[in-house]
Amino acid sequence: MNSSSTKNHKNDNKSLVDRVSAGDMRSVARAISKVEDVSRDASELMKQIFPLTGRGLVIGITGAPGAGKSSLVDKLAMYYRQQGERVGIVAVDPSSPFSGGAILGDRIRMQQLGLDPNVFIRSMATRGNLGGLARTTVDAVSILDAAGYGKIIIETVGVGQDEVEVVKAADVSVVVLVPGMGDDIQAIKAGIMEIGDIFVINKADREGVLSTEKELEALLSLAMREDFWHPPIVKTVATEGKGIEELAVAIESYREAHLKAIAPDSRRRAIARWRIVELLRERLVAQTLESEGASDLLDRLSSEVASRHRDPYSAVEEILRRSQ
Amino acid sequence: MNSSSTKNHKNDNKSLVDRVSAGDMRSVARAISKVEDVSRDASELMKQIFPLTGRGLVIGITGAPGAGKSSLVDKLAMYYRQQGERVGIVAVDPSSPFSGGAILGDRIRMQQLGLDPNVFIRSMATRGNLGGLARTTVDAVSILDAAGYGKIIIETVGVGQDEVEVVKAADVSVVVLVPGMGDDIQAIKAGIMEIGDIFVINKADREGVLSTEKELEALLSLAMREDFWHPPIVKTVATEGKGIEELAVAIESYREAHLKAIAPDSRRRAIARWRIVELLRERLVAQTLESEGASDLLDRLSSEVASRHRDPYSAVEEILRRSQ
Repeated sequence: MNSSSTKNHKNDNKSLVDRVSAGDMRSVARAISKVEDVSRDASELMKQIFPLTGRGLVIGITGAPGAGKSSLVDKLAMYYRQQGERVGIVAVDPSSPFSGGAILGDRIRMQQLGLDPNVFIRSMATRGNLGGLARTTVDAVSILDAAGYGKIIIETVGVGQDEVEVVKAADVSVVVLVPGMGDDIQAIKAGIMEIGDIFVINKADREGVLSTEKELEALLSLAMREDFWHPPIVKTVATEGKGIEELAVAIESYREAHLKAIAPDSRRRAIARWRIVELLRERLVAQTLESEGASDLLDRLSSEVASRHRDPYSAVEEILRRSQ
Repeated sequence: MNSSSTKNHKNDNKSLVDRVSAGDMRSVARAISKVEDVSRDASELMKQIFPLTGRGLVIGITGAPGAGKSSLVDKLAMYYRQQGERVGIVAVDPSSPFSGGAILGDRIRMQQLGLDPNVFIRSMATRGNLGGLARTTVDAVSILDAAGYGKIIIETVGVGQDEVEVVKAADVSVVVLVPGMGDDIQAIKAGIMEIGDIFVINKADREGVLSTEKELEALLSLAMREDFWHPPIVKTVATEGKGIEELAVAIESYREAHLKAIAPDSRRRAIARWRIVELLRERLVAQTLESEGASDLLDRLSSEVASRHRDPYSAVEEILRRSQ
């Protein structure tokens, strides 16, 4: 690439960034597609996007499948709309690239939140091996932030490693449970205890709410947080819109408490560090595998490992030797 | 490191590998701890372990939290024990490193499968940023395979990106559902359709089994698999041991069908490729961040990104420039 085409790229990005910061939905969608592409171009784009961020409130919502997260997110988004806020929703869908799960999710949503020009919904799915879902998700959130969405909700379907990281990277993290999850509830709770700034018991019209609430309270009373925040428990019936305002109030309380506190500083540094390492990981692999002949080498080594003529460790050493 | 210490390392590994291949449980545990440590040493160990693998059947079991996977895995393990098989269980727990979720899981388990010397149970948790959970899990499976465990069961708590990859890397993948998961069932199913070689509807004594089964059948009838395998649906009540034999039969049928088929070849190559790329990713980041001064640089850049004086992309570029 010569310097004039680099310059053109920068100009293209400049006008795209201008349109994003003016809140143009099509440009927001285009910008997100760019960061999903693992193209070199996204780097220049994101460098210009980053200084425009930091105004919106990023709300991470996680929980097990079946907990009714989607309904909860939709109702919370509608509540914010009634307050006059613009709302961005990023749904993380770690499903197979072939399944179309994300598209299905979008279609169901569109019926509910309609074509409200002040609500932007995007599902992020795993599309390949190289582009990390976590990195593309936080980049998409930054783009929505730059576009002036006041509330940005990240919803994750899973409770996987990457998904947990993404939710931790939010300004406030909400963990959704349902009554009567059975034997696994202890294990689930143990796993998400550290993540939740706010806990929701959704489907609170079901049996077992009280015992789930008591168990959760007991677990929370054992935890000692650095910031001395005691995570509230909010009961909701999302499908009927019950408890949504209480959730919004809890979110606002957390935001207010932490505007004054000193603790979030270490959290922000940890998030920044994680973003840098994620991006570094992706870049290093891309550099190595995009170099000349690397693709053929990887194909050959994969065959050799598959037929057990070679182990993955020595295969990696061969790739590393070659690229140095 | 001079050549004599390298030689000693190799000798240490040699005797460890010997003890692993003799099926010594303590050595298996030690070997797995080594691959979790992201220590340089694990590479030599795994090179020697790899040629000993390929004999055991690796069964991946996934599904939402609350689906009763742990009970199902325990009962399946007991069934295999009754058949005289040695069983390894690797539970993937993507929970916070502080929560102790994995340890909790182990303790509950030990009461059930007792101290049977022919059952090896290990929980893999996220312990840091650098060691990938997916890579350490497949390495642990290889070690159990080399140690002569005939059936190796990988259980994942989540349905995240890494967890899906791990399950895909198994010889046979089992997806566990429960009746009446509500609104999210379409989305979940869409996401896991491609993964499941066998589907289990657990807690099949609950309401809604029939409709869940019908929905699932409808979805499966739409899918066209490369290997023409039609994934069977097995109904279980794991806590009562019901349907466990049927599940074992389904697993065996899949294994037999694929011993003769040609399709798994491409699957094996895809798995090998994924293992190489995962390991490469980890190695490249470790090399870069373990170089002299890199830690201080990362700290400084993290602070700058956290205070918005810098964007993550230019931070990564600075790290890359420095390391080249």
